[in-house]
Amino acid sequence: MPASPIRRLIPFAEAAKKRGTHIFHLNIGQPDIETPDTFLAAIKNADLKVVEYSHSAGNESYRKKVASYYQSKGLSVNTTDVMITTGGSEAILFAMMSCLDPGDEVIIPEPFYANYNGFARAAGVVVVPVTAHIETGFALPPIEEFEKKITSKTKAIIICNPNNPTGYLYSKEELERLRDVVTRHDLFLFSDEVYREFCYENQIHTSVLSIEGLEAHAIVVDSISKRYSACGARIGWMVSKNAAVMAAALKFGQARLSPPTYEQIGGEAAIDTPQSYFDHVLDEYVQRRDLVVKALRAMPGVVCPNPGGAFYATVRLPIDDSDAFCQWMLEHFSHQGKTVMMAPATGFYATPGLGKDEVRIAYVLNLQDLQEAMEALAEALKAYPGKTN
Amino acid sequence: MPASPIRRLIPFAEAAKKRGTHIFHLNIGQPDIETPDTFLAAIKNADLKVVEYSHSAGNESYRKKVASYYQSKGLSVNTTDVMITTGGSEAILFAMMSCLDPGDEVIIPEPFYANYNGFARAAGVVVVPVTAHIETGFALPPIEEFEKKITSKTKAIIICNPNNPTGYLYSKEELERLRDVVTRHDLFLFSDEVYREFCYENQIHTSVLSIEGLEAHAIVVDSISKRYSACGARIGWMVSKNAAVMAAALKFGQARLSPPTYEQIGGEAAIDTPQSYFDHVLDEYVQRRDLVVKALRAMPGVVCPNPGGAFYATVRLPIDDSDAFCQWMLEHFSHQGKTVMMAPATGFYATPGLGKDEVRIAYVLNLQDLQEAMEALAEALKAYPGKTN
Repeated sequence: MPASPIRRLIPFAEAAKKRGTHIFHLNIGQPDIETPDTFLAAIKNADLKVVEYSHSAGNESYRKKVASYYQSKGLSVNTTDVMITTGGSEAILFAMMSCLDPGDEVIIPEPFYANYNGFARAAGVVVVPVTAHIETGFALPPIEEFEKKITSKTKAIIICNPNNPTGYLYSKEELERLRDVVTRHDLFLFSDEVYREFCYENQIHTSVLSIEGLEAHAIVVDSISKRYSACGARIGWMVSKNAAVMAAALKFGQARLSPPTYEQIGGEAAIDTPQSYFDHVLDEYVQRRDLVVKALRAMPGVVCPNPGGAFYATVRLPIDDSDAFCQWMLEHFSHQGKTVMMAPATGFYATPGLGKDEVRIAYVLNLQDLQEAMEALAEALKAYPGKTN
Repeated sequence: MPASPIRRLIPFAEAAKKRGTHIFHLNIGQPDIETPDTFLAAIKNADLKVVEYSHSAGNESYRKKVASYYQSKGLSVNTTDVMITTGGSEAILFAMMSCLDPGDEVIIPEPFYANYNGFARAAGVVVVPVTAHIETGFALPPIEEFEKKITSKTKAIIICNPNNPTGYLYSKEELERLRDVVTRHDLFLFSDEVYREFCYENQIHTSVLSIEGLEAHAIVVDSISKRYSACGARIGWMVSKNAAVMAAALKFGQARLSPPTYEQIGGEAAIDTPQSYFDHVLDEYVQRRDLVVKALRAMPGVVCPNPGGAFYATVRLPIDDSDAFCQWMLEHFSHQGKTVMMAPATGFYATPGLGKDEVRIAYVLNLQDLQEAMEALAEALKAYPGKTN
């Protein structure tokens, strides 16, 4: 397995830290937001005597609660449509393994979450990209672009909504266009909705679960990592109305026995997190996004779409090579003793050569840190030997 | 993925419960032993604000502690030789994926832990069995039997020591014979040592880590599931002195981000569990084993080796078909309103047809329950229509 562009940078980050440089970590979606007390208290108060295996599909009480979560959002989900997994990661892997055979193809709009590559490799599945463009804010590519890539081996399309790494929020109309292509060719539509709570400007998140005609095709991947800032919990789930898919997924679940016990307890309780928590978090992210977008747009030669959701922006910079630039930021640059770590966008494209002038910025730090990070980035773009404007 | 013989029985067990029959669950290695307070208290006292991703190899402090655990057993293990995984399951999967390519072959003495099949399938690896026999108590088959199965595609041998499902404890001499074949053919030796604390009659567990000449070949798989009766924690690890293997495993670890946070905290603290806990647990298991072995040997036509470790026995019964018998026990039999669920041994053999007159019994219940379970089994063997003696 080749090292990803982000992971390749880790030794340079470690060396910078050893030199005493402070690094603003905008390279990874690890928020500084506090995990809600609903989650933390439930674990603290869990009086277990024996930490037993749970059901391979997760505790039934939790699955029921997850179904009720979706029902409260107006989505018709039953307990039997839900399987708890060890993180959203495992949900994606199980979805792939349950729906595709080795050698089958999955179409994904690029740039996309780099770990999909690892799961596809593990499932023996071939990733076929359809390119989205920064000029349209990374909107869904025209459906003809998907049609062109469909072969007899194509079994699924994967979207992430709101999107990591672009922050793009797919509209209902875009999802309906996907529904049409998916039903026409009898494909699965995997929708990674782990950022579904993070939609800005009062935009409504449209789940593929709400799109008529997708019942047998739609598989939702979800996770508590971002929703409750509980990345370390390793709890996610998959949802589908397709009973055959859920039965296949359960077999993979049985092979790995069960998801972790304590975090299931925390996750179940977290579903009762008051809306005020999300209101506060969303307000914080909007401020962060606005700060970052404004600062980036003020930098000469930078193109930054306005993300509609999640907490990422994929940004065009006036540079020769994003891998080299991100490395240089760690190896040769600091501003007032500080620098910024970002993710080269090359890791989010499957098409070779794309993303060379783009980086992903995760606005997961507080406003003060983000302000300083943007100042450092502005200075870096002036000083970088490979700048192109 | 085909249903395993145990999982196939689950609906019959559920139906029996609905009829009000009490089931003694000797079919799964889920002990009733209490998790030690070291583990439980550490989680209760963990004051996390943000449940962050941990390092993909697990918390460094935990890896250090695991190394010190082995050092206290006289085994030379460094922090860098350890990677924390999401259960022993993941450790086996990562070991296979790191050491074998799809199409490669792994030799495993049968009967073996059925989930190895699932991990092999996920890694695209072919399992080649070498048969151990009940007549020798499931001792290591002669090394010539291994030699016969080695091809250019053979990359590894897997053992489980003490063994699930047989309870057999491999001797140092047996491991040295394996060392010779492994080094002669430049293979890996995976040793699943999750039951290493469960050795009876003061027998000493020999880890492959202690066998000279195996440094580049040995990969130990371990888990806290059984050691601390924390099956639901999903915490295990792999240990190897082979730096290339550990580097490859870390890449798979990065793809799934990190193992669960809370159970790492519990697991780290559990390494300081006082010896008195293990003494007590071991004493309990010896009594359980003695009760079960004595009861089984008193049943006409039953062959039961005396397990040297773990908490399983694979037993020959005077029956036509263990799958049918175990199903019949749930579907058509009860003694004083109670019956026994066992694992048909067919699921532990890769060679078709083997295990048809054997079952695995996990002696994970208290003495009173085991006594009643053995009485029910004795009655069942008298009543079963397919009995052969």
